[in-house]
Amino acid sequence: MLTRLELAKDWVRDSGNFLKENITAPLEITEKTRYDDLVTNFDQEVQEQLVQKIHHHFPNDAILAEEDQEKQSYDDKTPHLWVIDPIDGTTNFIVQKDNFAIMVAYYEFGVGKFGLILDVMQDKLYWCDSHKAFCNQRELVMKEASLAHSLLGVNSYMYRTNYSGLLDLSQHTLGVRIIGSAGISYGQLLDGKIVAYFSNLQPWDYAAGSIIADRIGYVTMTLAGEMPQLNCREKVFTAPAKLISEIQKYIRN
Amino acid sequence: MLTRLELAKDWVRDSGNFLKENITAPLEITEKTRYDDLVTNFDQEVQEQLVQKIHHHFPNDAILAEEDQEKQSYDDKTPHLWVIDPIDGTTNFIVQKDNFAIMVAYYEFGVGKFGLILDVMQDKLYWCDSHKAFCNQRELVMKEASLAHSLLGVNSYMYRTNYSGLLDLSQHTLGVRIIGSAGISYGQLLDGKIVAYFSNLQPWDYAAGSIIADRIGYVTMTLAGEMPQLNCREKVFTAPAKLISEIQKYIRN
Repeated sequence: MLTRLELAKDWVRDSGNFLKENITAPLEITEKTRYDDLVTNFDQEVQEQLVQKIHHHFPNDAILAEEDQEKQSYDDKTPHLWVIDPIDGTTNFIVQKDNFAIMVAYYEFGVGKFGLILDVMQDKLYWCDSHKAFCNQRELVMKEASLAHSLLGVNSYMYRTNYSGLLDLSQHTLGVRIIGSAGISYGQLLDGKIVAYFSNLQPWDYAAGSIIADRIGYVTMTLAGEMPQLNCREKVFTAPAKLISEIQKYIRN
Repeated sequence: MLTRLELAKDWVRDSGNFLKENITAPLEITEKTRYDDLVTNFDQEVQEQLVQKIHHHFPNDAILAEEDQEKQSYDDKTPHLWVIDPIDGTTNFIVQKDNFAIMVAYYEFGVGKFGLILDVMQDKLYWCDSHKAFCNQRELVMKEASLAHSLLGVNSYMYRTNYSGLLDLSQHTLGVRIIGSAGISYGQLLDGKIVAYFSNLQPWDYAAGSIIADRIGYVTMTLAGEMPQLNCREKVFTAPAKLISEIQKYIRN
């Protein structure tokens, strides 16, 4: 019998192929909280594909999914929890037809068991089991680099307003990159293209990335230095464990 | 006999293959004007490859190249002028091993005849002749889009300091993307992934992109609304001709 991880890899790949096949299809675009917070019929369709498959195979598992109108709250007493972002980087999906990701994470009693990030247009599936992390078949390792010789992935608002000192921090690096998708930014982190990623994220934005990155020595925490709670939007960052204390020198609360 | 354009396409492809073959080779990195203005032995090597080939085939042509220590000044009386950026996005080349470009432009009496931008790691050659623009074999056309439904490519400093009102402008769009390479940003522009690109650029940063973009309806000008002069660093932007007046409503001098 296939494991949840094996099934999830197939499901994410299937939904990625569905999006690629429909990449030029007309979109129904709806504004959510504001004019630049968009959702399409494809976000909803991909979420439904994933949710139906989980329900079919694991009817007792809980699901926290971005496009659900009413979201239940989960904690470390939930035995089986899936966290789903059907299309991360919806604006990129709409405007660029590129630089978006499907993300799925799975927790047991609050412990991340696996994560999956599919960079759909580049055909790159970042994933991990309980021990190791991979991009497609290639095992990932952390690239050693000092802050001074690295780039940061940032959220544009937090960068330009020097939120908690993020701009100050960036000036001790080679600069910032702004991609517009947490999933693609986590992919860049896992590939060693950025050394750390800072943004204002919902659980489904960081769940998969934080679990995969954990396997190769990264830590995910809030700017206040706490564990993120999987129940609200928080300012979080993911960075190599050995750079945390240097980063925290620049971060103000 | 092969034309300058046909030769230049081969030369740029050859240098791109050279960089890809050496992408994991150790780098000799030197600081130019400041700690984050870097050059490598490969910038110099690629420049030499291109300059030697131009000199060999067209000994009377003039060359303006980024890594030359002393640069002659050229104007619209120069009959044959090549403008070369051997590696655009050198920081990305060093840190990311991705998101860098080789760029070549060619002018006769100040008129751009062709431009070439090779996104080395994606194997995408953006180029034009005197009439049409292409990505590899595919003819490019401008994607019609309003400012409000588009993304901007920006320079991080000009964005966060609201230089000339650029941040204000960005707030009438779906947001900004920061890539760290003019060549890759021009590629995104030509692909319709960003609607306009704003940065503080040297002639070799915008020469090829502005010529290629011109063929499908984009205009390149300084923030002051002048033609850029090919003789100094200037704040320039490239945007669809039909959006210039709307953009200029937000740009202050």
